[in-house]
Amino acid sequence: MRLSKRAEVLQESAIRKLDLVCAKFPDVHYHRVNIGQPDVATPGPLLEAIRGFQPDVISYGPASGLPACREAAAAYHARWCSALTAEHVAVTTGGSEALLFAFTALCDPGDEILVPEPFYTNYNGFATVAGARVRGIPTSLDDGFALPDNDTLDRLVSPTTRAIVFSNPGNPTGAVMSASEVARIANWAASRGIFCIADEVYRRIWFDESPTSALEIESAKDAVIVIDSMSKTYSACGLRLGFLISRNAQLMEKVERLGQARLGPQPLAQHVAMAGLALDDAYYADIRDVYRSRVSALYDALMGIPGVKTHRPEGAFYLMAELPIDDADRFARWLVTDFRREGQSLVVAPGTGFYTQPELGRRQVRLAAVLEEPILRQVGALLTEAVATYPQ
Amino acid sequence: MRLSKRAEVLQESAIRKLDLVCAKFPDVHYHRVNIGQPDVATPGPLLEAIRGFQPDVISYGPASGLPACREAAAAYHARWCSALTAEHVAVTTGGSEALLFAFTALCDPGDEILVPEPFYTNYNGFATVAGARVRGIPTSLDDGFALPDNDTLDRLVSPTTRAIVFSNPGNPTGAVMSASEVARIANWAASRGIFCIADEVYRRIWFDESPTSALEIESAKDAVIVIDSMSKTYSACGLRLGFLISRNAQLMEKVERLGQARLGPQPLAQHVAMAGLALDDAYYADIRDVYRSRVSALYDALMGIPGVKTHRPEGAFYLMAELPIDDADRFARWLVTDFRREGQSLVVAPGTGFYTQPELGRRQVRLAAVLEEPILRQVGALLTEAVATYPQ
Repeated sequence: MRLSKRAEVLQESAIRKLDLVCAKFPDVHYHRVNIGQPDVATPGPLLEAIRGFQPDVISYGPASGLPACREAAAAYHARWCSALTAEHVAVTTGGSEALLFAFTALCDPGDEILVPEPFYTNYNGFATVAGARVRGIPTSLDDGFALPDNDTLDRLVSPTTRAIVFSNPGNPTGAVMSASEVARIANWAASRGIFCIADEVYRRIWFDESPTSALEIESAKDAVIVIDSMSKTYSACGLRLGFLISRNAQLMEKVERLGQARLGPQPLAQHVAMAGLALDDAYYADIRDVYRSRVSALYDALMGIPGVKTHRPEGAFYLMAELPIDDADRFARWLVTDFRREGQSLVVAPGTGFYTQPELGRRQVRLAAVLEEPILRQVGALLTEAVATYPQ
Repeated sequence: MRLSKRAEVLQESAIRKLDLVCAKFPDVHYHRVNIGQPDVATPGPLLEAIRGFQPDVISYGPASGLPACREAAAAYHARWCSALTAEHVAVTTGGSEALLFAFTALCDPGDEILVPEPFYTNYNGFATVAGARVRGIPTSLDDGFALPDNDTLDRLVSPTTRAIVFSNPGNPTGAVMSASEVARIANWAASRGIFCIADEVYRRIWFDESPTSALEIESAKDAVIVIDSMSKTYSACGLRLGFLISRNAQLMEKVERLGQARLGPQPLAQHVAMAGLALDDAYYADIRDVYRSRVSALYDALMGIPGVKTHRPEGAFYLMAELPIDDADRFARWLVTDFRREGQSLVVAPGTGFYTQPELGRRQVRLAAVLEEPILRQVGALLTEAVATYPQ
């Protein structure tokens, strides 16, 4: 019984692969800063929407989502693009499915997608499933993960390049692109005849300046695909509800067909999503405050560790940190299997999984500021000790 | 902006493509027998499970499902295979995702999957998304959609054949394979080194004899993949919760990785699924009775129409009927746009979408016995008039 080559090369999730190891040590209290799973309470109206969902029959909904949910999402995103209507929105099973639909609609096997690295590791998985390849655009912690100029981007384009994908605010970098950078990249993609997939699932989590949405770049509207999700904004990762948004009608027609192939997203989750999209602006100000404090606490803790280099995040809730270690995979595993302080330990995401060339992340780890401040300070203290005692 | 060739060839769902046309006639009451959406009430315990899901944080769950849900599904399926444990079960976003995972794990672009036709039309969509092709195994309404012998199957196998997929009980045929046929096909697949994907989402809906699960075929256990779903058994199509079950450990490892790429199925839906899996046997006897009466009513109505040929279903809730018409697509569209009796009309699924060679289904339609008996009799009466007045 032979499996597909595609399945053979499918990477184990860099973020999740340590979970199985943790399970072997049930007595250890692990602080999990490896995964973007906030402990912030899901807002009450979302839980009320769950309780209120009591139909006679739990029926299929339409392939691209319930009309009311598509309209609510269009109205919500009209903050960034007033021309948006329901037909520009497809509801998906998480931002994950939105990314998979985008990759599948754009790429045939062998095609390429450009991605600034370090990048959200699952882009790799979606590309593999779609039979496509990601091609890294090198960026560096030293200059805040700035994107290279158009000439450099041009040199990475080949006849098989179908899109550029990036997250803004950035996972794992915490970097927020300036308005002019968003416009430059979107217009560059449009001018090269490739799509610009802007993963904006962290758009509401920023600390200095509100990020520009790629939806705002009118001149590139046919090239822009925006990914959004309920997961981070509403502390509802387990809802599995996301959005693919584009004003390219031809693309949206194909997305509808991809959607039909799996029938439709869950109506229950869409009712919950509508409750979230209806929250007022005070809610978003509150969660910004929460993550601003947490990210600051974690950043300060990291800066206190000798030999650590990191970038102060401008959004999202991750920090990519370079540690004085030889091998992040080995270090992360050692933390889980060997490092303990008063019954506690850490789970971090090794940097290698966030690059097309793992070597570039060999000394880096990604940390998620998803826990309360005192715990994040404790994480900093544990990491300080770990770095000092790790047998290189 | 060019889209993928794969997206260009993606078929519009044969079952859903008339929905948009219906929307243009808001005053017409359409009896929808085109889609397998039962109007049977979802059991109370499932709705209670929804109300009871009130976590502080709606969090991600594991990629292959919550341990408790995997265990519950293994215990439930132990009715057919006592050796089954949680590690043989992956929870998926509907049977749809289970099929997509199976196709993706087995096929590289260009590979083939054998499928007796007529077949569930979405197999085509999953194959297209996976970059694979379905190759039809002809069966005929005249002999109850019997599968051909092994020699004939052998002639359809090529070096790129990766699996055979079938639904049992059959959608759209209503045919139930005998125990010896299930064993023959599973063992044949195993002996040819290809997988046997048994789509058993209608397993609990049968009228004469309880269907044999492919899980029972011990001699082919490494080759067998079973697809199950909450949708039909529990009238919960909109829950989007299914299962991929296999005792092939190598396959399950790849399914776990495919699952990691989209993070995990929704925990809420898994709690609802556990409530369903815990129902006692009386529930299944009840729904069998419901569908037995409905299918009988629809079958009797069809047999009363001059020139109609159909097969009496032994399970599931569909009938594939040959009508005295020239073109099922044209007929189905004409019903929606032109045929009215006292403000009522019909939506049927044209047979062409259920075959690799549409010509084979040119005079056939699929009808779903998903409505109450009096309505199904009304459907029969409307169809009688429609066939008589349809302008060929």
